Amino acid sequence: MLIMGVTKKMKFFKRCILAGVALLGSMGVTAQAETQMQTMLGDAPSVPKNIVIMIGDGMGPAYTSAYRYYKDNPDTQEIEQTVFDRLLVGTSSTYPARVSGYVTDSAASATALATGTKTYNGAISVDTNKQPIATIMEKAKALGLSTGVAVTSQINHATPAAFLSHNESRSNYDELAHSYLKTDADVMLGGGQKYFPASLIKKFEAKGYQYISDFNQLDSVKQGKVIGLFADVQLPWAIDDSDSNKLSKMTTKALALLSQNDLGFVLLVEGSLIDWAGHNNDIATAMGEMEEFANAIEVVEQYIRKNNDTLMVVTADHNTGGLSIGANGEYSWDTSIIRGVQASPDVIASDALANGDWRARVTLNLGFEPNDDELSQLSRARMQGKEVMSTSIKQLIDSRSNTGWTTVGHTGVDVQVFAMGPAASLFSGYQDNTDIATKLISLLPKKKL
Amino acid sequence: MLIMGVTKKMKFFKRCILAGVALLGSMGVTAQAETQMQTMLGDAPSVPKNIVIMIGDGMGPAYTSAYRYYKDNPDTQEIEQTVFDRLLVGTSSTYPARVSGYVTDSAASATALATGTKTYNGAISVDTNKQPIATIMEKAKALGLSTGVAVTSQINHATPAAFLSHNESRSNYDELAHSYLKTDADVMLGGGQKYFPASLIKKFEAKGYQYISDFNQLDSVKQGKVIGLFADVQLPWAIDDSDSNKLSKMTTKALALLSQNDLGFVLLVEGSLIDWAGHNNDIATAMGEMEEFANAIEVVEQYIRKNNDTLMVVTADHNTGGLSIGANGEYSWDTSIIRGVQASPDVIASDALANGDWRARVTLNLGFEPNDDELSQLSRARMQGKEVMSTSIKQLIDSRSNTGWTTVGHTGVDVQVFAMGPAASLFSGYQDNTDIATKLISLLPKKKL
Repeated sequence: MLIMGVTKKMKFFKRCILAGVALLGSMGVTAQAETQMQTMLGDAPSVPKNIVIMIGDGMGPAYTSAYRYYKDNPDTQEIEQTVFDRLLVGTSSTYPARVSGYVTDSAASATALATGTKTYNGAISVDTNKQPIATIMEKAKALGLSTGVAVTSQINHATPAAFLSHNESRSNYDELAHSYLKTDADVMLGGGQKYFPASLIKKFEAKGYQYISDFNQLDSVKQGKVIGLFADVQLPWAIDDSDSNKLSKMTTKALALLSQNDLGFVLLVEGSLIDWAGHNNDIATAMGEMEEFANAIEVVEQYIRKNNDTLMVVTADHNTGGLSIGANGEYSWDTSIIRGVQASPDVIASDALANGDWRARVTLNLGFEPNDDELSQLSRARMQGKEVMSTSIKQLIDSRSNTGWTTVGHTGVDVQVFAMGPAASLFSGYQDNTDIATKLISLLPKKKL
Repeated sequence: MLIMGVTKKMKFFKRCILAGVALLGSMGVTAQAETQMQTMLGDAPSVPKNIVIMIGDGMGPAYTSAYRYYKDNPDTQEIEQTVFDRLLVGTSSTYPARVSGYVTDSAASATALATGTKTYNGAISVDTNKQPIATIMEKAKALGLSTGVAVTSQINHATPAAFLSHNESRSNYDELAHSYLKTDADVMLGGGQKYFPASLIKKFEAKGYQYISDFNQLDSVKQGKVIGLFADVQLPWAIDDSDSNKLSKMTTKALALLSQNDLGFVLLVEGSLIDWAGHNNDIATAMGEMEEFANAIEVVEQYIRKNNDTLMVVTADHNTGGLSIGANGEYSWDTSIIRGVQASPDVIASDALANGDWRARVTLNLGFEPNDDELSQLSRARMQGKEVMSTSIKQLIDSRSNTGWTTVGHTGVDVQVFAMGPAASLFSGYQDNTDIATKLISLLPKKKL
């Protein structure tokens, strides 16, 4: 058995998975999963044709647990499982190169996930000597596969940038935007109009790209290459967006466009703003972004159920904010408070500053009535302007829900790894973030077909 | 394949594991793990004869990540893996019964892990109607297996109590101590002399138990039954204990005694004081307790390498303290500070209060020299007594190392699951804590042999 070829081994793995499900079934643990799993696997190939890498930026383990409770229907006895529970296979460490200590930023971790190499915080797929390192996207392109990114930040933000480009600093947004001309990426969807002036867009068009800037145009795109920038910088918070699920829609479109390549594709999908909400220590907005990302994962899950030649690996690049489910000595986390919040604290604050009857409006927007002490605090904050008011609203939500934070930066806890599709079992157990890239790259075709 | 018997399936799983290692090897991912794994598995049975359940009380995911960096040798380029990295297979949710919300206490979670049933916070293996639920220890006893506990708290603390007894409240320590007379457990090692007066010990002796209260007596114990209580309440902090690794020694002895039963055994080992240090928001002491627990896991790991009929499942009952690796906006976690601390903050505080040259002594005990501002703070704290001084020392260590906390209680993040030995693969992926018990109980013999 130890000298099996890779393909034979992967077939054997499929049997292993089926047997595992059967064994659990025979022990009464997961009675009905068996048939589902068999149906799903169908005649799945052993090595994927397509790879979808999904990154929840900043989505440490507390975020996925929190999301389960946020989505829980309190009127049922059971706590419903989420897509994260269904797909969990392992964990990953995220530390950067020694020179940057133990706590990574998004650039170093995205470099690790895109290239398999540790680097310094701030680096965009260059090593500690600032030399470029080939990314999985570049390797895929060289093999004739299509590539794409669909993100909720600007498309030249650290994570997508490390998959598409190289730069000694993530802050060189304009350089990164220009460098995308050379990527030959087929689909680039997200925000970032600010970094792509008309002169640059013309160059993309000269290379055969269709440019769209209105989200409604997305439907009309029938083939790549396409660059779609739907916001000046990042997309709106999901909690504030009347047309939410933009990440799901971009993911659906990216899959439709990229799958036109018979040789396969590599797609990066990022729930970028989970991290931004975490930096803001903003639990209601963070849960909205988690839902946005979870829905996009479910889009890919559905795609794989119909296209069993596609591997999805979902992880986070690091943890943000030191979020905790419960705080201040209380053994409770009140999700009804969080679920009731109707808008991001920034929007609630702006609304409160613009209106005389702000108390009633804040109550409506929060979904609960602040008590007299809380109203006094809000009143004092309101007099100090939007930022202080917004912070005060976040603190009120945290205090009422028992949500804790330790930092406006990142923390070093290991993140989770989720996978589905051919070779998903490779990602089981503990691994380093560089291992994820190494495994993914090993699954690319060995030569151009 | 789907109608394989359990034994045949487990053999098949062994092949799966070997094939998995081989596949990874062929992809260049884990080149040398292959032979090790084969050697280790030997002719392992498919279902375990013995089960060791190891609980790191309060050991949420940040603790195991933190421990990796705490143990890292900064003089090497690589970050060394820990026993947790070697053995990780999945994660577990910890929420209690609906009536207690989403954040569990140790009693409800230990009940889940011992019985497979959710209950209210505070319950010791009784359900939400306060009716007793059979534990894995009781089921094992009924099947003729030996049972034991080795913990660093008092042996009648919530976690071991939920494995051995039943009570509507974890606070009924005296009732729990008396109830242990009926457990027929073969080995009980830990602290708790306070709850076991001479009159009660006499009753244990009348039942054939050897009682020891001096840790040095442990060596002389050659067979069960034994009750060893080595402290009034909990054992000393590992960081303060000149004779540390007590949990490893108790675990070694428990394995030696319990393995005398040819029918097998179930042993609970708990790193109880990780949680206590977490409640105290005391990172240096917590890392000492993590090391104590990790060493005990390695004892069992070594045992399984020689006794491949033994399954070990390691998990946590919940997360404590909302620990974060990095805090206050800083992207760093300075383990040199934490590694340098020579005693628990309580001991450092007592020492500082008892001595005139406290500044020099604190510097020595901390392993770094506080600056003038920090010394002023310590000086003010010292005048307010031991508790304030101890808190001030903890805050200084946190501030210097960038360690964050959100609560003196528990939080609801999922915990990790580690496993080794026959049927270890059953614990892969996401599961609920009740599933862990259900799986373990399903691995007990079906009837008394």
